[in-house]
Amino acid sequence: MPRRSAGPPTVALRVVHEDRPDLIPSIAAGLAEAGARVRTLATVRRFEAEGDGPARVESELEFEDLDETGAIAALERLGRDLRISSTSTAARIWGKRVIVVGGGAQVAQVALGAVSEADRHNLRGERISVDTIPLVGEEAIAGAVRAVADLPRARLLVLAGSIMGGDISTAADELRAHGIPIIALNMVGSITEHVDLVVSDPVQAGTMAVMAVADTARFDLTRQRGRRY
Amino acid sequence: MPRRSAGPPTVALRVVHEDRPDLIPSIAAGLAEAGARVRTLATVRRFEAEGDGPARVESELEFEDLDETGAIAALERLGRDLRISSTSTAARIWGKRVIVVGGGAQVAQVALGAVSEADRHNLRGERISVDTIPLVGEEAIAGAVRAVADLPRARLLVLAGSIMGGDISTAADELRAHGIPIIALNMVGSITEHVDLVVSDPVQAGTMAVMAVADTARFDLTRQRGRRY
Repeated sequence: MPRRSAGPPTVALRVVHEDRPDLIPSIAAGLAEAGARVRTLATVRRFEAEGDGPARVESELEFEDLDETGAIAALERLGRDLRISSTSTAARIWGKRVIVVGGGAQVAQVALGAVSEADRHNLRGERISVDTIPLVGEEAIAGAVRAVADLPRARLLVLAGSIMGGDISTAADELRAHGIPIIALNMVGSITEHVDLVVSDPVQAGTMAVMAVADTARFDLTRQRGRRY
Repeated sequence: MPRRSAGPPTVALRVVHEDRPDLIPSIAAGLAEAGARVRTLATVRRFEAEGDGPARVESELEFEDLDETGAIAALERLGRDLRISSTSTAARIWGKRVIVVGGGAQVAQVALGAVSEADRHNLRGERISVDTIPLVGEEAIAGAVRAVADLPRARLLVLAGSIMGGDISTAADELRAHGIPIIALNMVGSITEHVDLVVSDPVQAGTMAVMAVADTARFDLTRQRGRRY
């Protein structure tokens, strides 16, 4: 299916509520009745029950098509015991995400390049995060590659290692089919045949990854597809 | 309120559905009726409408107290046009998160230490991610510090810069009141009076940050509170 890249502005609220199964559907329905499309929900804190009271959780909610005032009014109409506060959307704070997965030594060097380059773009109004995890083994890395498809705002994956192939290459094909491009270091294994771009220097790989997602850069990954540097 | 640190095992599904306001409340209600507590929802992809058909989105859902088979049955009972597939929970793949915010040069060095240390723990069965963003200015950094409280699985923040204070220090107090500790580099400004630990060397700051959240390390941040290295 053709993809839409982004939606209208999103509003975020934090809500402390009882930790019962019916609260989240109720909150989501209250917002939807006021016209909102709920886009994000995350349980960010869990609180012990106090005395005979119920256990509580704090949820962060993000939604489109309804402003903050309308949302608070909609939630108050529910008549539940909710403690509502304002917050910023994750997109506004953390922006686009470049994900770096692989061996610790190489992940650290890719991060060095990517963070330095993100600094230059964020100074000019971009918001680009560099999110990393060092992992070992085909199964762990393939699992992480597949899971990038579930990360909101993930725009590009860098595979940083010395040998990758097998199920990691299969997972790379799946992720690219979801519309997320991949840059790999030049390394042993089939992975370099299953990515958009191969870069030998990890610092440059990180730099190029950020350039590829920055609106403030002139770098078109689609014109580099299949190349090696 | 006293905090609970974690809940029971979580199950994750991906669902492609029509992009209408009532779908998310309906899906959440279907899961809740089968006993689930919905913990996470993220709109991970948006698809253009095809012909006269409706626009669609793909949502990733995570919930407790219901297994995958029960959840799929509950969703199928809704009688909606849903395309359901399995996926891994974010906690299983990305684990605990150390967040690094500040100036590009220092963020990159803290990331170097943190990724290298996370590598050592992840090899022994931990899952620790190092998520970074280079930012400039009091307002942007204070906003990011406050937003760490909305990040699922964020366990510790490292403030990496050369001068921080003012509203960043206020935001640091707020974040610590939410139960998330902070390590800061030794730097100019009031921030060093509003964090749990001050470390001069950025690589060591990153290393200590990961040690503080790793179950595989013997490092108790509470015993270091207020110290400077």
